[in-house]
Amino acid sequence: MRTMMPTLLVAWVGMMGIAMADTHKFIPQNGVATYAVRPPVLRVKPGDIVESPTMAKPGDYYEKEGGPWPGEVGPFFIEGATPDDTLVIRILKVQLNRDTAVSFVRPAGLSALATDGRLRLLNDPLPTRRFVWQLDRQRNVGTLDLPNSRSKRIEIPLRPMVGRVAVAPAGEEAFGGLWPGAFGGNMDVPDIREGATIFLPVYHEGALFYFGDIHAAQGDGEVCGSGLETTAVVTMQFELVKGKKIVWPRIEDADHVMVAGSGRPLIDAFRIAHVELIEWLVADYGFDKMDAYQIVSQAGTARVANVVDPLYTVVAKFPKALLPKERK
Amino acid sequence: MRTMMPTLLVAWVGMMGIAMADTHKFIPQNGVATYAVRPPVLRVKPGDIVESPTMAKPGDYYEKEGGPWPGEVGPFFIEGATPDDTLVIRILKVQLNRDTAVSFVRPAGLSALATDGRLRLLNDPLPTRRFVWQLDRQRNVGTLDLPNSRSKRIEIPLRPMVGRVAVAPAGEEAFGGLWPGAFGGNMDVPDIREGATIFLPVYHEGALFYFGDIHAAQGDGEVCGSGLETTAVVTMQFELVKGKKIVWPRIEDADHVMVAGSGRPLIDAFRIAHVELIEWLVADYGFDKMDAYQIVSQAGTARVANVVDPLYTVVAKFPKALLPKERK
Amino acid sequence: MRTMMPTLLVAWVGMMGIAMADTHKFIPQNGVATYAVRPPVLRVKPGDIVESPTMAKPGDYYEKEGGPWPGEVGPFFIEGATPDDTLVIRILKVQLNRDTAVSFVRPAGLSALATDGRLRLLNDPLPTRRFVWQLDRQRNVGTLDLPNSRSKRIEIPLRPMVGRVAVAPAGEEAFGGLWPGAFGGNMDVPDIREGATIFLPVYHEGALFYFGDIHAAQGDGEVCGSGLETTAVVTMQFELVKGKKIVWPRIEDADHVMVAGSGRPLIDAFRIAHVELIEWLVADYGFDKMDAYQIVSQAGTARVANVVDPLYTVVAKFPKALLPKERK
Amino acid sequence: MRTMMPTLLVAWVGMMGIAMADTHKFIPQNGVATYAVRPPVLRVKPGDIVESPTMAKPGDYYEKEGGPWPGEVGPFFIEGATPDDTLVIRILKVQLNRDTAVSFVRPAGLSALATDGRLRLLNDPLPTRRFVWQLDRQRNVGTLDLPNSRSKRIEIPLRPMVGRVAVAPAGEEAFGGLWPGAFGGNMDVPDIREGATIFLPVYHEGALFYFGDIHAAQGDGEVCGSGLETTAVVTMQFELVKGKKIVWPRIEDADHVMVAGSGRPLIDAFRIAHVELIEWLVADYGFDKMDAYQIVSQAGTARVANVVDPLYTVVAKFPKALLPKERK
Repeated sequence: MRTMMPTLLVAWVGMMGIAMADTHKFIPQNGVATYAVRPPVLRVKPGDIVESPTMAKPGDYYEKEGGPWPGEVGPFFIEGATPDDTLVIRILKVQLNRDTAVSFVRPAGLSALATDGRLRLLNDPLPTRRFVWQLDRQRNVGTLDLPNSRSKRIEIPLRPMVGRVAVAPAGEEAFGGLWPGAFGGNMDVPDIREGATIFLPVYHEGALFYFGDIHAAQGDGEVCGSGLETTAVVTMQFELVKGKKIVWPRIEDADHVMVAGSGRPLIDAFRIAHVELIEWLVADYGFDKMDAYQIVSQAGTARVANVVDPLYTVVAKFPKALLPKERK
Repeated sequence: MRTMMPTLLVAWVGMMGIAMADTHKFIPQNGVATYAVRPPVLRVKPGDIVESPTMAKPGDYYEKEGGPWPGEVGPFFIEGATPDDTLVIRILKVQLNRDTAVSFVRPAGLSALATDGRLRLLNDPLPTRRFVWQLDRQRNVGTLDLPNSRSKRIEIPLRPMVGRVAVAPAGEEAFGGLWPGAFGGNMDVPDIREGATIFLPVYHEGALFYFGDIHAAQGDGEVCGSGLETTAVVTMQFELVKGKKIVWPRIEDADHVMVAGSGRPLIDAFRIAHVELIEWLVADYGFDKMDAYQIVSQAGTARVANVVDPLYTVVAKFPKALLPKERK
Repeated sequence: MRTMMPTLLVAWVGMMGIAMADTHKFIPQNGVATYAVRPPVLRVKPGDIVESPTMAKPGDYYEKEGGPWPGEVGPFFIEGATPDDTLVIRILKVQLNRDTAVSFVRPAGLSALATDGRLRLLNDPLPTRRFVWQLDRQRNVGTLDLPNSRSKRIEIPLRPMVGRVAVAPAGEEAFGGLWPGAFGGNMDVPDIREGATIFLPVYHEGALFYFGDIHAAQGDGEVCGSGLETTAVVTMQFELVKGKKIVWPRIEDADHVMVAGSGRPLIDAFRIAHVELIEWLVADYGFDKMDAYQIVSQAGTARVANVVDPLYTVVAKFPKALLPKERK
Repeated sequence: MRTMMPTLLVAWVGMMGIAMADTHKFIPQNGVATYAVRPPVLRVKPGDIVESPTMAKPGDYYEKEGGPWPGEVGPFFIEGATPDDTLVIRILKVQLNRDTAVSFVRPAGLSALATDGRLRLLNDPLPTRRFVWQLDRQRNVGTLDLPNSRSKRIEIPLRPMVGRVAVAPAGEEAFGGLWPGAFGGNMDVPDIREGATIFLPVYHEGALFYFGDIHAAQGDGEVCGSGLETTAVVTMQFELVKGKKIVWPRIEDADHVMVAGSGRPLIDAFRIAHVELIEWLVADYGFDKMDAYQIVSQAGTARVANVVDPLYTVVAKFPKALLPKERK
């Protein structure tokens, strides 16, 4: 399960003669509303690269107030994936392909800082607001006019991320696009971006991979319920770790190993992420459990990814620089 | 309430002829067990600098298993402080003064990842463990032997912080040293370190300031219930913002404005910190409330400071680079 | 929406000549694993009575350790039900049809008082235990041998309830049998028993009703994750309130009007149930909102129905004796 | 620790010649703001009976809008009480002594169903309302005019309870009157009423007992932050269980053994109460731990006492009728 540079890996897969990796330029026709078992829209082999835009439709959410969510892309069937395996997705590139991003505040919308459908109080709800950000893809910044504020305008750095990466959940359940969970889904993790590798459990033959929901930028917790919601062309490479099972999504980038735990209340998402991170350090890096608990306590960091979705997501992180070079 | 370099500020205070700032080299004699109204151990004027070690006693917690907590330093009476004001503490220096740090796992000890006195379950508790870290103050690293782990030893960078800074709480309440709250206290915020400025509400004449609990390093959440617990000489400068009231502790460093909210459940600490951060942006930087909500959603970050104390602490952060230069 | 005695109502429906009510003796062939839109197994008219056993299969959960859950009965298509309506289910009779009931403690099983898949800690899990209760249907008591306890045996009164009553959830989602929600489902509410009337929102044509999961008895919260799990023949009458929409399940019995709110954390389930109860008192009984808030504060009661399922369920109750006789 | 009728007990204490029990008619002069170690206002022997009104002051909270809380009665020094013991308080009588009760809704007041100082959101707060109930002590009912509601008036049965019973907390902490905890305090448990026996841990010599906060009636959870707040003359008898230590407050009445656990989030209060109830059944009634877990799961009930105070309180109950006659 060592991270390798994708090009090397492709070469290696080729040398091993397992199968020649392909690059698929995929154009999704219809977005889907749930993470579930359904017929695949694309079949890929381990090692294959897929380049695909996220879903968009004329008149959708990205284009006008009240427009519907266009749905997720997928599922992709990864050949050879079985419930004994772990699916690996390398995010090779995330290229924004639109000049605007939208963000919402709605009375019954998701919110961490106001009443919503899951936090019901007697207070009056907040009013509706739709913010339209301009994306300058050359300078990699987003700007928003703020006519009611003294400074009139803000400009923030862009850091595109993929809000949703999922496999079909265990059993016969079908979770709507807003749900995160052990199967991945709408985790809204800013670390799932260009250069990151995602590991997801596999519950069904072919894994049945879904993705979507680009945020050009997003603060921790996504507190108003939406990031800079936009679209992009995403380039991903798929791999399998055969015979390895994980319980919650894992992420690696240049600096950290990470676990994304989802749950409510927030502390339970925090606990899931950290306990599974500790179990990872024990299983793959040879730490005693109490030792792993101690070093995560002293050198671990945590990110609150979302506190607005049906389950909240917390990412527990540990610096790779502090880990032994050799994994089991 | 503009942040200034401390030396400039001292000069400015001098030029204004308000009072000549003094530097106090204080040696605490007795630690105290609660944040409360009690007779001061030191009186300082706004502008004064205090250099003081944190409390330690022969045979205490830092020296042996089962040794008692030595208590907090304080209270310092800040002349002129009234309940209409905000107390400002600039952390000018935190110099570790000991070659070891300790960390604990105890069956009834505080924990985010195991049962403790506040999370009571039927499972058996974890066993007791005391970890002794060696502090190399030259190289600024801490090392821990891990004989039960494959790598046998870990070395982590040190980043000394002050776990507890407090004023006497409102009214007649006396909270034990483990409590954080609106009065500050055991917030265990890694950002409260050399170079940071802390703002605390004042509830009583003289504010009655307390501090202690140095961590040579600490992960987010302090998940095992303790950091690299050690001692230091702390140099602080005190100021007042007359006629300004805040509700929760605020922090500034070179990069961020921050609010530390404490509560349980974790989401409520998160909400307190973020709502008060938004109110701060509105009051001092001229943002419309909905605009501030939007920009915090997209460019704010959050740190889970502690999830083990009687109240949890979350720090909501916003980058200074995105704020207008002029405050109100 | 006045509660009427079922026999009167059948008579009344007959007199009105709307349609002649039928009684269906239904024998389910296959249990289903999710609440979802799927082809109906039975079609009923408003006013119809259905008598059906809950699902059981040779070698299932009720018969042997490790046996699989047999699934839910349904869906029933209620003719004329549309998303503008409320489905009414009168529980006319719950007749236990088995001499035993089982209850489980499992390391990864649901639990309110021990670690489980949603409360992950570093503590060791509890051991596995399967308790088999004897049901004396004549005397209406359940007995359990307790060889490890001083009293050796306990006998408790039976109070059969229907753990799961549901409609197909909104949209395309499919929730597994363990889930409660706005659609009903695995609420595990002891008040859903003989003599109770349940009101559920309708999201799809025909409502698509499911039920199952008899508990011969259950304590508040179902803290070990299961009640006295057994089977029964349930007799229910179906009605519609045309043109009336509700958000969360409502229940009435001889003494109380009730709302069952489901969510995590527990306080959010509590809030949902109480806010919707207040809104009910305002809409149907003519109370001012602040007045309704006050009287619920002083005369309302609450039941913690389950604190083990994917969402917790709280029932907010208000005594009918304190309500005006006339509803709107 | 068997419950006995108070008069029998007094007789028995007399016969044993241990000490002649006295009856004290106490009139408090000043209410106190915190549960803390302070000089006692009354000394009583085990077996003694105290009859005392709760605190009231001209112009206080009970008399006018904005009037201050008059404080708690106490502390009483119970002779012979040491930190190894359990304090027993039998509530012999609660006689209302006022014709009105008040209840509040305030923007920053405590609330379970609206924003307050601990649940900070961006929504606007609720408006202020003060409700004045008329108490008819002959008929034992409270009435409230509801001019804005269709029914114009409500009448509810009274069920007077003592909101606050406490000992001085452990160590040097001083908690304000609003706090519940392991020391008792503002638990707001409707079961603490005439006929109930309360058991509290003892942390200091003499136990230092406090009480106050009569509610003529209160719904579960005290959701608006106050019950029918009024005053009464309370008659209590004090006893000690020497050499017995408990961790959380216990309650007995004619029907149930109960534990009152306080914490946040609500599930943690629920867990504390239930785990300690199970431990009680194991220690005093000879149940195996897993057996006790099972029977509490099937025959236990729970009351949400308060979800508005700084800590929430849940009461776990088990029917005495199901317990063996002999305790250890």
